[in-house]
Amino acid sequence: MTPLREQAERIVLQAIEAVKPWPLIHSRVHVQGNVLQIDRHRWDLSAFDNLWVIGFGKASAYMAQALEDLLGERITGGMVIVKYGHAAGCRRVRIREAGHPVLDEQGLAATQELLQLVRQAGEQDLVLCLISGGGSALLESPPAGIHLDDLQQTFRLLLESGATIEEMNAVRKHLSRVKGGQLAREIYPATCVSLIISDVIGDPLDAIASGPTAPDRTTFQDAWRVINKYGLVDRLPASVRTYLQRGISGNEPETVSETDPLWQRVTNIVIGNNRLALQRAAEVARQLGYQPFLLTSRVQGEAREVARVLAAIIQEIQTTDQPVRRPACLLVGGETTVQVTGSGKGGRNQELALALLLAMGKQALPYAFVSCGTDGTDGPTDAAGGWADPSCWTAIEDRGLDPLPFLINNDAYPFLETIGGLLKTGPTGTNVMDIMVGLIP
Amino acid sequence: MTPLREQAERIVLQAIEAVKPWPLIHSRVHVQGNVLQIDRHRWDLSAFDNLWVIGFGKASAYMAQALEDLLGERITGGMVIVKYGHAAGCRRVRIREAGHPVLDEQGLAATQELLQLVRQAGEQDLVLCLISGGGSALLESPPAGIHLDDLQQTFRLLLESGATIEEMNAVRKHLSRVKGGQLAREIYPATCVSLIISDVIGDPLDAIASGPTAPDRTTFQDAWRVINKYGLVDRLPASVRTYLQRGISGNEPETVSETDPLWQRVTNIVIGNNRLALQRAAEVARQLGYQPFLLTSRVQGEAREVARVLAAIIQEIQTTDQPVRRPACLLVGGETTVQVTGSGKGGRNQELALALLLAMGKQALPYAFVSCGTDGTDGPTDAAGGWADPSCWTAIEDRGLDPLPFLINNDAYPFLETIGGLLKTGPTGTNVMDIMVGLIP
Repeated sequence: MTPLREQAERIVLQAIEAVKPWPLIHSRVHVQGNVLQIDRHRWDLSAFDNLWVIGFGKASAYMAQALEDLLGERITGGMVIVKYGHAAGCRRVRIREAGHPVLDEQGLAATQELLQLVRQAGEQDLVLCLISGGGSALLESPPAGIHLDDLQQTFRLLLESGATIEEMNAVRKHLSRVKGGQLAREIYPATCVSLIISDVIGDPLDAIASGPTAPDRTTFQDAWRVINKYGLVDRLPASVRTYLQRGISGNEPETVSETDPLWQRVTNIVIGNNRLALQRAAEVARQLGYQPFLLTSRVQGEAREVARVLAAIIQEIQTTDQPVRRPACLLVGGETTVQVTGSGKGGRNQELALALLLAMGKQALPYAFVSCGTDGTDGPTDAAGGWADPSCWTAIEDRGLDPLPFLINNDAYPFLETIGGLLKTGPTGTNVMDIMVGLIP
Repeated sequence: MTPLREQAERIVLQAIEAVKPWPLIHSRVHVQGNVLQIDRHRWDLSAFDNLWVIGFGKASAYMAQALEDLLGERITGGMVIVKYGHAAGCRRVRIREAGHPVLDEQGLAATQELLQLVRQAGEQDLVLCLISGGGSALLESPPAGIHLDDLQQTFRLLLESGATIEEMNAVRKHLSRVKGGQLAREIYPATCVSLIISDVIGDPLDAIASGPTAPDRTTFQDAWRVINKYGLVDRLPASVRTYLQRGISGNEPETVSETDPLWQRVTNIVIGNNRLALQRAAEVARQLGYQPFLLTSRVQGEAREVARVLAAIIQEIQTTDQPVRRPACLLVGGETTVQVTGSGKGGRNQELALALLLAMGKQALPYAFVSCGTDGTDGPTDAAGGWADPSCWTAIEDRGLDPLPFLINNDAYPFLETIGGLLKTGPTGTNVMDIMVGLIP
């Protein structure tokens, strides 16, 4: 590994370290005597009869474990729902495993168990709710009469119709008894404090895990409007159509709007997000002598096109010292997408790295670039992301390879594997989307 | 027009003003007594018997006009080739109009006339050569026996095969007697000074107008390798195949490589480029009280995807004051592309603005964004570009429009027209690709 890659890898790994559940909980949650303090919020634990810890999402077992370290026997009990294989040893908090990204029967059963638990919580109880990426599939309770198959068919129809994420979410929340603030309604009258690791751009509380403890701006009317807009009324499963129509008529419970008085008992705190990882990356970059340049924590778009923009910025820095003077460290976060048209193996970070390598070209001035999923898993591969730097071209020419067909075939993994361009971290136990680091010496 | 748009428009228009031929020539070319000075280069005009002015490209008539202002009767004569409708009144320099972007017989005839002129120039003559965008189609002299149709068929085959720009150019230069430094060979032994307005990212001298007065790195072998790679050997017009094969055998003149001694008599000077326009934009932004943030002058990629990255940067500035503190002016230059899949009317700048409007969303904090072709013509429309700002949504809702289908159908023009989102400048007489300005108050 080149010295430049070593430095970039150090920046990436330290950034991920900073958003793992254990350091996040320990740096943001403080217990002194009876006082629980999180950021500017304080609670007197002696005022509560019980302290429950619940959660859902891939990181929630690790979050619960870290909370047990801090709160020990003060925790009455609790339960978290994690993806299969994401359990961690907890003493007081039960762990349930369930399906992700596709909701399964285990998830439905675990959600019922979790709801029974929070319904016991009374006015004098505190419920700490640990939310992380994947929570939307792991916590679900459809209205009576709507089967799992009906839900899946509805979302497939919406997906195929070209509905936007916002439109999908409006429908999704109105076919659920926990999303759109409805979990908070179940927790009420207990006090609810949600600690959130955000895997959504901009940390919108109503979108992370479909906002189970956050106010919802949408209504049954909005959901119906989406169904109508895409001409799906007659194609919906009958149970779904009937339920939405009953909802419009006021015969089913609406999601919880901002004006509901229950929000006085709810506090949502984002303890970890992409920006925090980038800020840690900037610190490490500075320590290594680079001028950090945090461009955005909200990047979106087709991976190979985002790569061309980032290449343009790296080239501008290389040739003009603008917008930042060398030695510089370009930092970008967010989540790109890949419209799969080929049949190859890869992930959005690997594809972005390969596209950047091509955009920078063979004659490039010195740089090292890496794009990495903070969860350690990029697409259906065992790599977290990929590298691009001028040394790649030596390997490419030694082997007589042509990178372009690999990019076109969405086949970044074998290509990067051959030229030593894969970054492997193993699963990290957290997820704040992706980070990209470009060092320009 | 909102005050924010007014300011953004002022920034864009002043930036374009700075890269028009007249101000460029007058700010970069200085004549004092017998000394012609351009940047750090100086020539003693009294040492030359004749001063010829030649040129090709859309802006070259205006460049010649400005040079006549400066050099007046010192100019012996000359000739420039411009696109139909781009002539300007010159006294000593002849103007010839020809086809663009598709080369025509007028262009071939004008090129012959220009070559006859420069072949007269002797060792004691100075040839000022004015190069601007479009020059590649306006100046062309195919080898004997290769017809216009043969050339066009060859390039169509290459385009369809998926060859890269670099690969296309390697072939193009080897089917020409003027590209790849060969015009400089015709001018030799006269002294050649080329003044260039660059419409190519990174100002590569060998790519602007196919590098008629710049060294070429490619050979007949490279050109043939491209033909082979895409399996076109048997599909080439016979005249082209024969010519390239003769070239490989050393029986046709090679383009002019870097080691040729003639380069001692050639100076290429880029007097205008995208970066210069952005720097002027930065000055004006600063005068208006904005912190300018010049991101890159090399942006490339699919317009709608570039838009999403720029939206992410604007949102980061809006919410975190990073990477630049508000009030800020984001400045980006380069040239995006649109892969046309719809049947609508628009241009890359209009499509970028529409996509940015969507990416910013309805609830956006204040901003104004404009993307603009510096030549004043965006795609096959009479607009130079398009606007995006929150006021667009008012117009959209008033009219009950849905922007997404317009974007999908590459139909930005009518959409932006309806909501008052077109920027019209008229033809500007110059071209340094596109500039994008985002004001975040």
